Amino acid sequence: MEHIKLDIEKSLGFVTKKEVFKFEEESKKHLISLQKGTGKGNDYVGWVELPSQISEKDLNDLEATANSLKERIEVLVVIGIGGSYLGAKAVNDALANNFDHLSPNENPIVLYAGQNISEDYLFELMQVLKEVEFGICVISKSGTTTEPAIAFRLLKELLEKNVGKEEARERIVAITDESKGALRSLAEQENYKTFVISDNVGGRYSVLTPVGLLPIAVAGHNIKELVKGAQSMQNYSVAAAFDENPALLYAATRNALYAKGKGIEILANYNPKLHNIGEWWKQLYGESEGKENKGIFPASVDLTSDLHSMGQYIQEGQRNIFETVISIAQSNHSVLIPEDKNNLDKLNYLAGKHVDQVNKMAELGTQLAHVDGGVPNLRIELPRLNEFYLGELLYFFELACGVSGYILDVNPFDQPGVEAYKSNMFALLEKPGFEEASKKIKERL
Amino acid sequence: MEHIKLDIEKSLGFVTKKEVFKFEEESKKHLISLQKGTGKGNDYVGWVELPSQISEKDLNDLEATANSLKERIEVLVVIGIGGSYLGAKAVNDALANNFDHLSPNENPIVLYAGQNISEDYLFELMQVLKEVEFGICVISKSGTTTEPAIAFRLLKELLEKNVGKEEARERIVAITDESKGALRSLAEQENYKTFVISDNVGGRYSVLTPVGLLPIAVAGHNIKELVKGAQSMQNYSVAAAFDENPALLYAATRNALYAKGKGIEILANYNPKLHNIGEWWKQLYGESEGKENKGIFPASVDLTSDLHSMGQYIQEGQRNIFETVISIAQSNHSVLIPEDKNNLDKLNYLAGKHVDQVNKMAELGTQLAHVDGGVPNLRIELPRLNEFYLGELLYFFELACGVSGYILDVNPFDQPGVEAYKSNMFALLEKPGFEEASKKIKERL
Repeated sequence: MEHIKLDIEKSLGFVTKKEVFKFEEESKKHLISLQKGTGKGNDYVGWVELPSQISEKDLNDLEATANSLKERIEVLVVIGIGGSYLGAKAVNDALANNFDHLSPNENPIVLYAGQNISEDYLFELMQVLKEVEFGICVISKSGTTTEPAIAFRLLKELLEKNVGKEEARERIVAITDESKGALRSLAEQENYKTFVISDNVGGRYSVLTPVGLLPIAVAGHNIKELVKGAQSMQNYSVAAAFDENPALLYAATRNALYAKGKGIEILANYNPKLHNIGEWWKQLYGESEGKENKGIFPASVDLTSDLHSMGQYIQEGQRNIFETVISIAQSNHSVLIPEDKNNLDKLNYLAGKHVDQVNKMAELGTQLAHVDGGVPNLRIELPRLNEFYLGELLYFFELACGVSGYILDVNPFDQPGVEAYKSNMFALLEKPGFEEASKKIKERL
Repeated sequence: MEHIKLDIEKSLGFVTKKEVFKFEEESKKHLISLQKGTGKGNDYVGWVELPSQISEKDLNDLEATANSLKERIEVLVVIGIGGSYLGAKAVNDALANNFDHLSPNENPIVLYAGQNISEDYLFELMQVLKEVEFGICVISKSGTTTEPAIAFRLLKELLEKNVGKEEARERIVAITDESKGALRSLAEQENYKTFVISDNVGGRYSVLTPVGLLPIAVAGHNIKELVKGAQSMQNYSVAAAFDENPALLYAATRNALYAKGKGIEILANYNPKLHNIGEWWKQLYGESEGKENKGIFPASVDLTSDLHSMGQYIQEGQRNIFETVISIAQSNHSVLIPEDKNNLDKLNYLAGKHVDQVNKMAELGTQLAHVDGGVPNLRIELPRLNEFYLGELLYFFELACGVSGYILDVNPFDQPGVEAYKSNMFALLEKPGFEEASKKIKERL
């Protein structure tokens, strides 16, 4: 069985092997803490065993729901913010056609809402939805988070107006708490199909729960393969030796680099479909580690595009960055560079080559250039871009993040800082219950 | 005349007014250096006077070309990398419907190519282009830059196959050097309509030249208003006192913050249409300042979305970041939050409010939270999101970048680091002329 691979070789000019292997025992210990649920934030480590615990029955239920939606709708709007949409969007975009909305597709188009509070965004979305058969997958543990709650109020009303209350019920799926909260109450009242957000899995680790899996299934991707890939990485990671264990090695290497003053990590891809894997990864690592005035700052780039944008900075700016590259060994389609008898553009030396062969030499050339410029390089390789290896990649990143957060000595499963803007917003909007805070905040303005 | 505004008030708890005003004389001096062309990189300061130098005739020619394309095509593919597409994409996305590809539109859809070397991207693009009437705007000074040259070879061949050589000539516009280079030669040979990339304007400062303006005009936006906005900011900036001069104040404040150890700047928006303004800005600042092992690291976020992703880090991670927010005073459309008699989601306290009112309180609440958390805040306000104020914004950022680079004592108009990956790539691909380098690089592998 082939797995995704991690190569840390090109970091070893910046940290010694010894400095990485210093974390061997500790990272193994943290892995066990995660498995046994004995570390910080242990109420939220349900994701560790998740891939091996999802049953065939659960997956069949998700697929059946997806199929029943597909028969009724052309567009699915996923309503959710943060971990409630980033995982699905990352996987859907990685597996979709680059020009999804312009290409014929038997599966519904998946759009996203409730992830911002832009009036123009909601207006323009509703204009589109007036003209199509749409459904809603609303994802919220409480049902009262401001952004998704506003979007759901508006789109539910629109859907009921478009197709009537009866049919709307068939087109709305709620993913929410098992027993409590506003969305659970509403779903029972309206008899929506529901799936459960477990208490022990936080939003940013939820892509392999119904939160991620249902929208991925509706978009037409194979969730069984995705889960199988995650299982494969789970099984491999608990058994592999440190020096062959990508999750532990990644956690160790980035902490060794951080200790040497490399405070910014740039996740780079050479395939634009991976753009939103970068966005998902930024939440996973930024929210897990960015606390107590520490943590590596996560950034991402799409290459070679951004070699003509962030490339100058990476090559010659402040030397506090390191780079983690995701590379796909083999492209899914074939395009050869044609011969041109004029050869004004002097490209004939590439004629007959696959475009991807050039991409690979750009990647290798960039790795060498960045290392020469003082940027340590880690490289993750996927044999192919498909559901299975994406499943491996997601689980690899999650597991490494848990271990890495423990090495940093923070709780990688809380996000206390996310409350600050919300409390201020509620006070400013004079939400019932925030009267004291309202008074106080208005004195500051 | 109302202008875009910059407010640095919420940075003044981190740097004193004196520390900002320390740069007053220097920034004025640098502004004059830019105008007179007496500073570093003075071969590339043609953009400074550009808005006031573009003639009505030039703009009419661009509009006429755009109109003639519009009559022939449904899709325009802009082929270019870095500064050759980021400006057009930033403005087009800022002014487009959020769901552009799903909404009826009388103007051609603008797609981008030659900004990456993804085989699947090119394959899938060509699949789409086989079925539509398309044209090409190819943008390259030399015509031999690898990424756009590969894309142009493939798409030119496809277009000629689709519609014949005669009609293809009418649908291809080349933006290139005035007299030399492969693309100029080809354009003359094939009799393409051309526009000139001036010698004295670098790619990342080229959005107000035909490089940006033609694709913006094809997408149906008003390039005369865009240029008028830039002119307005140009006129204002050369005359305004330091404390009312957004470009000088921005340059001074960010350098004062950088001197205090704030090495990461996050550009934030509260409107997803501004996402690619962030990408354009990252090239402008990253490529201008990231050299000699210094420069502020530029990152960007879309809020409130990313408050549930990067928000935790911004609130509580390493305290080496500051935030620059772009805010739009008034949205273009109107959506009110509806009343719901059940009120399970407890949103009725917002009923009757504009969605944007909530967005504005989220913004204000976030500003207070981040400042409390140790993140200095700068705020740029546009009265509306339209061509005029985008023109002001673009010119403001360009001028501030030139001044800021001079304060940092670098040449803000070169990008020596971008060559490193290219030379390695050519060596690895055994490009004719790179025989020595090929031998050397292969010994390293």
